[in-house]
Amino acid sequence: MPIPVSQRVTVAVDAMGGDSAPAAEVEGALLAAEEFGAKILLVGREDAVRSELGKHFPARAQIEIVHAEDVVTMDDNPATALRSKKDTSIRAAAQQVIDGRAVGMVSAGNTGAVMATALQVMGRIPGVYRPAVAQIFPTSQGGQTLVLDVGANVDCTPSMLLQFAMMGDVYARVLFGCERPRVGLLSIGEEEQKGNELTREATPLLKGDSVRFIGNVEGRDLFSGEADVIVCDGFVGNVALKVSEGLVSTIKTILIESLEATVMRQIGYGLAKGAFEEFKKRVDYEEYGGAPMLGVRGGVIICHGRSTRQAIKNAIRVAIDFETGGINRQIQESLEHGLGRN
Amino acid sequence: MPIPVSQRVTVAVDAMGGDSAPAAEVEGALLAAEEFGAKILLVGREDAVRSELGKHFPARAQIEIVHAEDVVTMDDNPATALRSKKDTSIRAAAQQVIDGRAVGMVSAGNTGAVMATALQVMGRIPGVYRPAVAQIFPTSQGGQTLVLDVGANVDCTPSMLLQFAMMGDVYARVLFGCERPRVGLLSIGEEEQKGNELTREATPLLKGDSVRFIGNVEGRDLFSGEADVIVCDGFVGNVALKVSEGLVSTIKTILIESLEATVMRQIGYGLAKGAFEEFKKRVDYEEYGGAPMLGVRGGVIICHGRSTRQAIKNAIRVAIDFETGGINRQIQESLEHGLGRN
Repeated sequence: MPIPVSQRVTVAVDAMGGDSAPAAEVEGALLAAEEFGAKILLVGREDAVRSELGKHFPARAQIEIVHAEDVVTMDDNPATALRSKKDTSIRAAAQQVIDGRAVGMVSAGNTGAVMATALQVMGRIPGVYRPAVAQIFPTSQGGQTLVLDVGANVDCTPSMLLQFAMMGDVYARVLFGCERPRVGLLSIGEEEQKGNELTREATPLLKGDSVRFIGNVEGRDLFSGEADVIVCDGFVGNVALKVSEGLVSTIKTILIESLEATVMRQIGYGLAKGAFEEFKKRVDYEEYGGAPMLGVRGGVIICHGRSTRQAIKNAIRVAIDFETGGINRQIQESLEHGLGRN
Repeated sequence: MPIPVSQRVTVAVDAMGGDSAPAAEVEGALLAAEEFGAKILLVGREDAVRSELGKHFPARAQIEIVHAEDVVTMDDNPATALRSKKDTSIRAAAQQVIDGRAVGMVSAGNTGAVMATALQVMGRIPGVYRPAVAQIFPTSQGGQTLVLDVGANVDCTPSMLLQFAMMGDVYARVLFGCERPRVGLLSIGEEEQKGNELTREATPLLKGDSVRFIGNVEGRDLFSGEADVIVCDGFVGNVALKVSEGLVSTIKTILIESLEATVMRQIGYGLAKGAFEEFKKRVDYEEYGGAPMLGVRGGVIICHGRSTRQAIKNAIRVAIDFETGGINRQIQESLEHGLGRN
């Protein structure tokens, strides 16, 4: 069902980002314009984007192309790309946000380059040590858990984990509508003394009154619904995310192989097809909307390189909600408030 | 099909360990005695074990009970249990190994307590800095990847990761029968400069000639078959393992919910049931045999607390293969050799 959103909400989409760019990006943008009434700036090589747009029913006025000459590939080193490629679609999209022409940006491109460029162009929210990428994981009860950081920062300090908790707390309150999100610390056992140096040192900070800290949680709790927000350093979070993605994809392969092994099973598979589609929707990261990068001065939604048009559409929705939820203003307030208390 | 193994091979099983002890342990032991011709020492409270054994067809001579008074529960703090409980089934099982009455031990009990007790009773192989727990992950091509450490050590040093690689190399050669296992370093990107301080410092060590190092791998490669052995610190490895377990269990829940939602799907599910059983066998950790703790002077096979009798039986098989494969002798040789070269 179309959800009405103010027509004035504009989102910049990096049209050259993902593995199937610009097709998925253009189609996702068209879906989002239609469904959310949002205006979309498709940022990238004008010829490529225009040709892709031409394949579709005359686009509405809500789609606009913003030309950017350079493209960052998945194989580019983020730091090198940041220095050597001046007019990238990522940078131009970030610039749209910082210039106030869009409320946020969406990119399925080279994650490292998106993070580095967004941080360089937009800067941090005052008081933020380091931005963090927050990923939603589905729980077995049909709920969701927000995990951060899933890749922006390796080698974190305890204070960074506390800030991740505070930023995650703000985002979860808006995202899940819960008043006091339960915040867990990802470790290898529930007991406080379990964990590594970082988690043991972060525990007393998290126990302060900044967030509703429920203690250590384990890897399995990413899906158990025990916590609304789980904090970890970006190395561990990224491994956890990639393990999940890899396992979902492996399970799909194994299951389909088994389901197609006999005629009887093929018939059964056919009858139960709807169940697999539901399943895919709930656990497949390619179907998901993007993960916001919290702590930068603008909405930055990072999508999986293999994002489908559905995923791009959902990520645009995340960018809109990020703005209308006033996430960044609240993060700034929470940090100012928290700093006063700690 | 029964696989003949020398009758003299004896394995000690902690009968009081897992969540459904001693039932799963006793049944697993009976299956192993039958299938592998092994002798099993069931270690634990004699009355409980004898009563469980009594439920089964008169046991063969290959089953023997070794009494131990104390039981470590899942809630016990490992360090406290080590100090305060003197005659635990874990300690008695380890003692059987070190006294030469069993070639290895199997326990589905409190993992921390098993690791601490085995290390205390058996000691390390000369030259080993720290033992590591090695877990097998199924790959999408039907192969397997060995991941270590999955929980014995947090806060590792680069030299520890090198040793994990060397121990994993030995084990994979025997386990998978490959001559030169491909060893990957778990990180958050394939490029060498990606990762945290630990992985960046471990890279030059791994690049030496001790193992066939293929560089950084990512979380998804636990299932991709890119590497035969993947090394990581015990914190990251344990998170990866628990994420996998949690996700498999979540996926089962979600899938079954979806499959039972309509009558048509239920019929389909019924027809395709064999596929789900195959699937469960390949990805379900409760069905798996145990994970060996490499680097201690004796075979120690750690099982999941929720191990079924099938898992216990498979773990006994792992203990037998560990001994007949001469793993510990080869680890010692590899380390002596490696130390000479580095």
